[in-house]
Amino acid sequence: MRVQRPKGTVDILPEQSGSWEQVEQTVRDFLKRANYREMRTPTFENYEVFARSSGETSDVVEKEMYDFEDKGGRHIALRPEGTAGVVRAYVEDKLYAPEKAKPFNVYYIQSTFRYERPQAGRQREFHQIGIESFGASNPLSDVESIMLGHDLLAELGVKNYELHLNTLGNAQVRHDYRDALVNYFTPLRDQLSDDSKRRLEKNPLRILDSKDDQDKRFLAAAPKIIDYLDEATKANFAQITQMLDRLGIDYVIDNDLVRGLDYYSGIIYEFMVEDKSLWESATTILGGGRYDNLVEEFDGPHTPAVGFGIGEERLMLVLEKQNPQLFEDQGIDFFITNIGEGTAGKAVEIARSLRRQGFSAQYDVEQKKLKAQFKKADRAQAKYVITLGAQELANGILNVKRLADGKTVDLNLENVDQMEKMMEQLKD
Amino acid sequence: MRVQRPKGTVDILPEQSGSWEQVEQTVRDFLKRANYREMRTPTFENYEVFARSSGETSDVVEKEMYDFEDKGGRHIALRPEGTAGVVRAYVEDKLYAPEKAKPFNVYYIQSTFRYERPQAGRQREFHQIGIESFGASNPLSDVESIMLGHDLLAELGVKNYELHLNTLGNAQVRHDYRDALVNYFTPLRDQLSDDSKRRLEKNPLRILDSKDDQDKRFLAAAPKIIDYLDEATKANFAQITQMLDRLGIDYVIDNDLVRGLDYYSGIIYEFMVEDKSLWESATTILGGGRYDNLVEEFDGPHTPAVGFGIGEERLMLVLEKQNPQLFEDQGIDFFITNIGEGTAGKAVEIARSLRRQGFSAQYDVEQKKLKAQFKKADRAQAKYVITLGAQELANGILNVKRLADGKTVDLNLENVDQMEKMMEQLKD
Repeated sequence: MRVQRPKGTVDILPEQSGSWEQVEQTVRDFLKRANYREMRTPTFENYEVFARSSGETSDVVEKEMYDFEDKGGRHIALRPEGTAGVVRAYVEDKLYAPEKAKPFNVYYIQSTFRYERPQAGRQREFHQIGIESFGASNPLSDVESIMLGHDLLAELGVKNYELHLNTLGNAQVRHDYRDALVNYFTPLRDQLSDDSKRRLEKNPLRILDSKDDQDKRFLAAAPKIIDYLDEATKANFAQITQMLDRLGIDYVIDNDLVRGLDYYSGIIYEFMVEDKSLWESATTILGGGRYDNLVEEFDGPHTPAVGFGIGEERLMLVLEKQNPQLFEDQGIDFFITNIGEGTAGKAVEIARSLRRQGFSAQYDVEQKKLKAQFKKADRAQAKYVITLGAQELANGILNVKRLADGKTVDLNLENVDQMEKMMEQLKD
Repeated sequence: MRVQRPKGTVDILPEQSGSWEQVEQTVRDFLKRANYREMRTPTFENYEVFARSSGETSDVVEKEMYDFEDKGGRHIALRPEGTAGVVRAYVEDKLYAPEKAKPFNVYYIQSTFRYERPQAGRQREFHQIGIESFGASNPLSDVESIMLGHDLLAELGVKNYELHLNTLGNAQVRHDYRDALVNYFTPLRDQLSDDSKRRLEKNPLRILDSKDDQDKRFLAAAPKIIDYLDEATKANFAQITQMLDRLGIDYVIDNDLVRGLDYYSGIIYEFMVEDKSLWESATTILGGGRYDNLVEEFDGPHTPAVGFGIGEERLMLVLEKQNPQLFEDQGIDFFITNIGEGTAGKAVEIARSLRRQGFSAQYDVEQKKLKAQFKKADRAQAKYVITLGAQELANGILNVKRLADGKTVDLNLENVDQMEKMMEQLKD
């Protein structure tokens, strides 16, 4: 019987991988320009890392974690998201040390894992692109994080996204709001889903995130955080929105926005895309916010922090619609066909030289008949075909043909290593 | 208590990640020029995938696999090497179909996992770069794989490597040689290590791979495969070495080379680096070979195949010695310092404009005092510092200073979006 890939995973095949590479290269170049540098943390961490960061009662930790014991009896888990590992590293590797740049800005592009029901844009192994900035509490730092998200999506070619903003305020605000939610939901307890009953005790904010119809009917009338904000939080939020106005970054203030993880404090935001051909309702492709307490949760020094994550699968679904040229096959520059005694070795040498010069070039390692080689050149979408027979080898003159218009040029074998110059003859 | 990363794993921090990125970008560009395209398979596969490919009795499967049951009771494992997943995908996704290009050439750059004793260049999570070519049995295809390995290492800046070649011949050769090994080792059985006693029954070739001193004393006198090669295998091997000679690729024929996995058939090869400051003996950084039977093991059609893998950690250790400029910090182009009412917003706008133009640019999101901002510019190794005070804002004229020589130039605020042109004034 054939072995299959595990449920909820996919193979990214050569015809798709080029677009993934381009997206990731765009992300790397963009973030490098903002002086964010890459950090790679392990694919698995001690279980406690995620329990601490996501919250023991989160769906992620309770139901969706790929956790297991390694051969040494350690309880480890594949990362369900990117921030926890980075924070663990920030503390363990003492990246808060005085000699380190402040803020400490990093990004990652990595596989993440959740045991969920697979659906469009949601797999059990998925990819996350994220940035984190440690050490700055100034609203400018919130603005930078939002601006980078905004400009990055624009550079990738994402259109029609809507930026949703909310603030969770300071610790007192969150405490008061929590009490208000408990007061509101407690009389309704018996009518809530089982998950939300548990959330009511451990983290009532999570009820607002519920996708369960049983819970949803009570959400509209639930207390709104905006009514619990203090003056300092309001002033901070106003500074952020004023700067966004100045930068021409549109947003909507969305009091229902809470985000699914325990660790957020201060501002939270999501970039949402509405596309009925993809999803029934508007869907988040980038989400982030401030998390000033998480480094302390990992026994590091008090460190304000802000960051965002992008779900790469969802991003690719959107880009396939909105930036289709990213998904076009590029083809290669040269295919060298050869036939006759002694030509194979020369074909390899020519290809090797062309590759050294920066061209993409292929020849037929199978050494099929000429007709089959031309078919291969077509399939590889070669721009030029070089023909090499016993006669050409003897003359030292090759024929280079541009497939787009059939135009040809003669190429002296001695000039193969100056192909750029030779190609000028083919310019119209 | 602080949470630590799991034993045998590392964090690749921002000061190191730049060199990893450069290496991987070089690999991608190089392989693209040879028309190899990326394939991404899942991080975990059904356990059977690796049991089939590596062999039930291999150390990898017996002792080193990160295998566990997922929440649905599936027996899955983190990949211990890259080839098995690609072969599984090749069969499952029907990449052998007539409409696909032949040979089907792919590469991967990915995390792999083995529960081993950590040592220099060997971690429990490590990175592998690999290529696989499916569908060609011509010796040219073996040569292409070796040539790509050779030229890639050269392009990365690896020096002083030695290419070791051997052949495992066809099925009859391997069968005869296996019998010879059994005949040789059986009388010595009681003096072998426990591992090798087991190997003697299941796969005696593996004994030649043993690192155990108990076994090593018997290896020198063991039968050599070269004495069991048939004429066809010898002719095939000669074709390969003749083409390598023509291409100027040096090699040594190494009859002790067997490689650690069950699936090889035909030619096998390793690029080894000797550097006493890194390792006591010569160490393999790239290894590969032909495996014509593996696709059938996965119930696919008969498909000849050849490929190689590079251990990225070891490669980085070698490059750190041999190509140190890869590890130098690049620094950013611009740091914009600002002080005074209303300057912060303008600093953000300038940085945003510079980034759009392709420069790397930073400002101080913390809005510290000017002296601290200059220190940040230094730490970021900025090439230029732009100063923006209330006066500059009023005049519309900025001062741009090149830190290398202190040379300055005035920049009209209106021309910030044409920085390339402005910078020409700073050319000497």
